[in-house]
Amino acid sequence: MSLFVHKYGGTSVGTVERIQAVADKVSAFRQQGHDLVVVVSAMSGETNRLIALAHDIQECPDPREMDVLVSTGEQVTIALLCMALKKRGWDARSYTGSQVRILTDNSHTKARIQDIDVANMRGDLDAGRVVVVAGFQGVDEQGNITTLGRGGSDTTGVALAAALKADECQIYTDVDGVYTTDPRVVSSARRLDRITFEEMLEMASLGSKVLQIRAVEFAGKYSVPLRVLSSFEEGPGTLITLDEEYPTMEQPVVSGIAFNRDEAKVTVMGVPDTPGVASRILAPIGEANIEVDVIVQNVAEDKTTDLTFTVHRTDIDRATAVLKQVTTEIGAREVVSDDKIAKVSIVGVGMRSHAGVASRMFNALANDNINIQMITTSEIKISVVIEERYLELAVRSLHSAFELDADPIESR
Amino acid sequence: MSLFVHKYGGTSVGTVERIQAVADKVSAFRQQGHDLVVVVSAMSGETNRLIALAHDIQECPDPREMDVLVSTGEQVTIALLCMALKKRGWDARSYTGSQVRILTDNSHTKARIQDIDVANMRGDLDAGRVVVVAGFQGVDEQGNITTLGRGGSDTTGVALAAALKADECQIYTDVDGVYTTDPRVVSSARRLDRITFEEMLEMASLGSKVLQIRAVEFAGKYSVPLRVLSSFEEGPGTLITLDEEYPTMEQPVVSGIAFNRDEAKVTVMGVPDTPGVASRILAPIGEANIEVDVIVQNVAEDKTTDLTFTVHRTDIDRATAVLKQVTTEIGAREVVSDDKIAKVSIVGVGMRSHAGVASRMFNALANDNINIQMITTSEIKISVVIEERYLELAVRSLHSAFELDADPIESR
Repeated sequence: MSLFVHKYGGTSVGTVERIQAVADKVSAFRQQGHDLVVVVSAMSGETNRLIALAHDIQECPDPREMDVLVSTGEQVTIALLCMALKKRGWDARSYTGSQVRILTDNSHTKARIQDIDVANMRGDLDAGRVVVVAGFQGVDEQGNITTLGRGGSDTTGVALAAALKADECQIYTDVDGVYTTDPRVVSSARRLDRITFEEMLEMASLGSKVLQIRAVEFAGKYSVPLRVLSSFEEGPGTLITLDEEYPTMEQPVVSGIAFNRDEAKVTVMGVPDTPGVASRILAPIGEANIEVDVIVQNVAEDKTTDLTFTVHRTDIDRATAVLKQVTTEIGAREVVSDDKIAKVSIVGVGMRSHAGVASRMFNALANDNINIQMITTSEIKISVVIEERYLELAVRSLHSAFELDADPIESR
Repeated sequence: MSLFVHKYGGTSVGTVERIQAVADKVSAFRQQGHDLVVVVSAMSGETNRLIALAHDIQECPDPREMDVLVSTGEQVTIALLCMALKKRGWDARSYTGSQVRILTDNSHTKARIQDIDVANMRGDLDAGRVVVVAGFQGVDEQGNITTLGRGGSDTTGVALAAALKADECQIYTDVDGVYTTDPRVVSSARRLDRITFEEMLEMASLGSKVLQIRAVEFAGKYSVPLRVLSSFEEGPGTLITLDEEYPTMEQPVVSGIAFNRDEAKVTVMGVPDTPGVASRILAPIGEANIEVDVIVQNVAEDKTTDLTFTVHRTDIDRATAVLKQVTTEIGAREVVSDDKIAKVSIVGVGMRSHAGVASRMFNALANDNINIQMITTSEIKISVVIEERYLELAVRSLHSAFELDADPIESR
């Protein structure tokens, strides 16, 4: 008999029928004798409906009131799911974030969890009840309702699992696990049985949007075994675990290929090669609240250099405008931008202990005549920026080069 | 400078535009320097939408979870109204029932208010904020969300006004006050400037559905001046006050004509005239949760009598079924029912001190050849049951007989 935390997202509870299906799933676990805490999101569409109402009223809605408003979405779902469980003969009790007492700071719309009071939930579990908790929300010291920001229900699930020392936190979603890459691009992409927290973080931030990144960080920090599964199909999903629990012998060099076409590239050309010049270029970009991803500066030739970096594609016009001003100030030659780029990354804890991973990657791309425009590396990831039109080809080449579309390895 | 409690019902906050209009109204009061606590209902249709969802999930929804569910309706409105007020430059803060701490008993879906903590609201008022409170909801000792039942937002308004010792509780609705009778039946019906709590109770329970009866009781008990006004038109509305504040000199004998076509009549004929027989007939009706209104028992002739009473029209089939069984048991002759009846009542504190009110009423009806089937009286009310087809005629006759459609009396 184990204690599980289940989390069901908006699509999984999007209709009355789907809520009934979630209740069936929970019933099956209870029948096996397990204790269950279930975290739910708002029914799909509901949060957007509420946000639209707010914007109809006030152009830039008050954050405190926004939290009062949107937190109703999950409150509706917890009540309906408890009713569905009661209908099936299980005792169940719903909790808003405030009722659990999921204590957060007071950063409305993006609050961070500080403490969770488990006493009431523990009492209900001991009494044989299913505990159903509204995801995404908490309460500050003063009793104000707060929310954790979009996707925060995953974080609620993991945080509850950590606080209750649950055996596993299971995130039910509309995909059946984490894949070696996007199956829409590479048909031979495989579901991973396991992945480490670190790999998952790199996969998530790079565009495999299965899990909220904060939830993965949280799970890693508190060593909560985390599993991603489908709400709609049976299957073991993907277990996200600590590196230590992942024997090196069986560890593949690369676990997955992530990619991202949301970025654009901007280059300031003919930058005078003087100390502090990179900062003079990037500081105004930061002040304009534009996030920068990959940065590359070439070696100086003729006392000038080129500085290239990528930004979110929606920010490219603003970034270019800022840089045109900077270019004049620092005496650089010109600003060139390109939004027809894509970023492809190989991710794997195995590359730490394997030399030659980078050359294998670059070689695979060269074989397909794909030119690499930028390169960045971390301990468990290598990313390249290439022309967007080569993206699918690059992903398929790398997937094959790192033997990801071979038959599943039994032991993984 | 006064402290007002405003209450806006579901129709008054039914759309984004109407919420903006409420914010304009509140702004106007603030501009005059008044302090304001605003109680709001769910946007019209929202509560029904939520209840329908619940019934789709569970035939007879769990009461605790029903309260968690439907209380979200008002929570949406408080957030939106605060946003609309902030947009107009006013500082405002929303409160759920739980955040105010409107402490209730734990009778889910029909909880009663036990205590209201005014400390936080008082702090906000002192700081110049508009306080916006979700109507209809509270919290029990254990922190469970409770609701006061349909129309409970009026009660919230009055209870807050009592707790805060507000100068007036203003209930904004879709009518501009309390009328001498339904203007759709009598075109010369007049809006009353004033009415006593007792009269209002009789009018409300008899079908003038302007205010929730519990709210009027509450206002009477705590002497909260209560005013009914239109959300959509300017005007003084109707002030509901204590009898003492209503000088007898100016008091009309009858303040209004109420009526009700929701009832049906059932008669058990040939009842053996033995002690306890009325109880043997009515006890099973009570056990079947059927509410009985008017009861009349005729004088016995030939050792048998007839017992007639009215029930809600939707209960008539169940009542008849129950009575058929009882009839056999007690040896009565037969059960006859009639759902083509209506009840008409004259209401007024003035009739206490005036003789001959009943005869004037019966005389007016006789002049129109309207047969009276049943009669009941209280200190400030006389009701008759008549054939339904004469209802409009009876109301018009009585309205005229008691000089209600004369020119408005200035002093009222």
